[in-house]
Amino acid sequence: MTTPDAPEIDAEAWLNTPHPFTLAALRGQVVLLHAFQMLCPGCVLHGTPQAQNVHRTLTGRGVQVVGLHSVFEHHAVMNRAALEVFVHEFRLTFPIAIDRSGATGQPIPRTMQAYGLSGTPSIVLIDRAGRVQLNHFGPINDIELGAQIGRLLQAA
Amino acid sequence: MTTPDAPEIDAEAWLNTPHPFTLAALRGQVVLLHAFQMLCPGCVLHGTPQAQNVHRTLTGRGVQVVGLHSVFEHHAVMNRAALEVFVHEFRLTFPIAIDRSGATGQPIPRTMQAYGLSGTPSIVLIDRAGRVQLNHFGPINDIELGAQIGRLLQAA
Amino acid sequence: MTTPDAPEIDAEAWLNTPHPFTLAALRGQVVLLHAFQMLCPGCVLHGTPQAQNVHRTLTGRGVQVVGLHSVFEHHAVMNRAALEVFVHEFRLTFPIAIDRSGATGQPIPRTMQAYGLSGTPSIVLIDRAGRVQLNHFGPINDIELGAQIGRLLQAA
Amino acid sequence: MTTPDAPEIDAEAWLNTPHPFTLAALRGQVVLLHAFQMLCPGCVLHGTPQAQNVHRTLTGRGVQVVGLHSVFEHHAVMNRAALEVFVHEFRLTFPIAIDRSGATGQPIPRTMQAYGLSGTPSIVLIDRAGRVQLNHFGPINDIELGAQIGRLLQAA
Repeated sequence: MTTPDAPEIDAEAWLNTPHPFTLAALRGQVVLLHAFQMLCPGCVLHGTPQAQNVHRTLTGRGVQVVGLHSVFEHHAVMNRAALEVFVHEFRLTFPIAIDRSGATGQPIPRTMQAYGLSGTPSIVLIDRAGRVQLNHFGPINDIELGAQIGRLLQAA
Repeated sequence: MTTPDAPEIDAEAWLNTPHPFTLAALRGQVVLLHAFQMLCPGCVLHGTPQAQNVHRTLTGRGVQVVGLHSVFEHHAVMNRAALEVFVHEFRLTFPIAIDRSGATGQPIPRTMQAYGLSGTPSIVLIDRAGRVQLNHFGPINDIELGAQIGRLLQAA
Repeated sequence: MTTPDAPEIDAEAWLNTPHPFTLAALRGQVVLLHAFQMLCPGCVLHGTPQAQNVHRTLTGRGVQVVGLHSVFEHHAVMNRAALEVFVHEFRLTFPIAIDRSGATGQPIPRTMQAYGLSGTPSIVLIDRAGRVQLNHFGPINDIELGAQIGRLLQAA
Repeated sequence: MTTPDAPEIDAEAWLNTPHPFTLAALRGQVVLLHAFQMLCPGCVLHGTPQAQNVHRTLTGRGVQVVGLHSVFEHHAVMNRAALEVFVHEFRLTFPIAIDRSGATGQPIPRTMQAYGLSGTPSIVLIDRAGRVQLNHFGPINDIELGAQIGRLLQAA
């Protein structure tokens, strides 16, 4: 099988959950990883509401939505305290990992690097066996996203 | 297996296709049957654009969208000539069956009766084996609809 | 003054009112004339909901919205009976004139001709003195439309 | 005349303008003051895009849109540096005042206090003579807002 195993999430902290998540522990579920930045308009206006909608619609039916706050610009103002306000005010309820900062001089955080994400918003779909089945940057049609999730839910 | 076989479409005529469709001939594909009336606001504003979106997104990937114009009220003004104008002006491109009129005194057309539809818009999903897997009246979330289609696409 | 006097509405019939309206009798009010066809997508999806919104927002404050069903194509299927169903189903509540048919061989109805409308949807704004102050074909921003109505309301 | 004179804007700094604005210098124009917080969903999703739309539609026609960043909660994360990123990323182009902090222990900034604003988003309309004509908290219909601006534009 040539589909890549999904790299583990490397998080500095988690919001909306009393305990960290690991992809290892999510084997058996389809995972939608929503990479975003709190001051990215394409995230705030489209990607993040879409992730919240998937969470509301499909949680408990084999799907786990995980947010990934992958800050690669304007790091100083998109810090943890700011993110906590954003998450509270916008009423996001899915668990959110704060992506771990890169090495000195590397603005791209570690999980974003590991997945080779092109920017935010990005969606990664991980199948029940922990393999990456979609790595998509930018907007995606709800019907298309739903259909891909549905296929992964049904796959043997 | 207790899932019902989908009743065949009983059409007076077809639009957007040079030949009639039959569910029998569509075995092997997932069929989305979109029952609508051209002067039903929930259809014009939501259901029919959604069906057109599924058609645009998933045609050629194992999904066939079929419209079903099931007129159960105001029959005189939602006739074939009016429907042809509607389909042309709203640029609908999926094949559309005109549901056959019921017996005298029965306002509900025959395919609508056979499926036991509650009104318009309704969505029926038919799996690759020709069995009804969803029969839904009213609005449905694109993520939910996409996920159900995706499951049927992947099912053995 | 070079602003043209608004031609009188020439209607075959009226819906949503027990009595015909005349522009003459509406002197002192700002009139928004919304020309539409019931099977024109730009009307159904944008122009007509906008007219309904102006009606709901500004009626009783010096503004009268008047619909004008100006059929210039597909006459047979956009007849009075069909329009009555459309108006009922889409819950339009402003008064609507059915524009009078043109002479034989002339598809454009008479009020549409008199105003020189380019198509549907069109908006005509008529000031308190009965003069045409806007004759606009196609979409118009709600802020722009509101501002033009507001100016006419305040004008001496 | 009992309409109150609009209190002057008390700003710590301005964005999107090389020089501070004063209401005094804007006499003769209609001013739309849009009070917002960069992490308030009702602002980000509705109020601020509406203000940007008024700016794009009516600037140069007697209307000046002025943003007022009135932070009354979560002060630490809605600071100037964060606002600058927000304004850049969301492509806001109207001038924006950063409302001056209140006295120690007073979370409500000074201009917000002076206008008695109830929260964000709020819209204040100021007429050509510098008087407050609307002080509105929460969403407002574009047609209603446009009509009120239009009336003020036309008022003697």
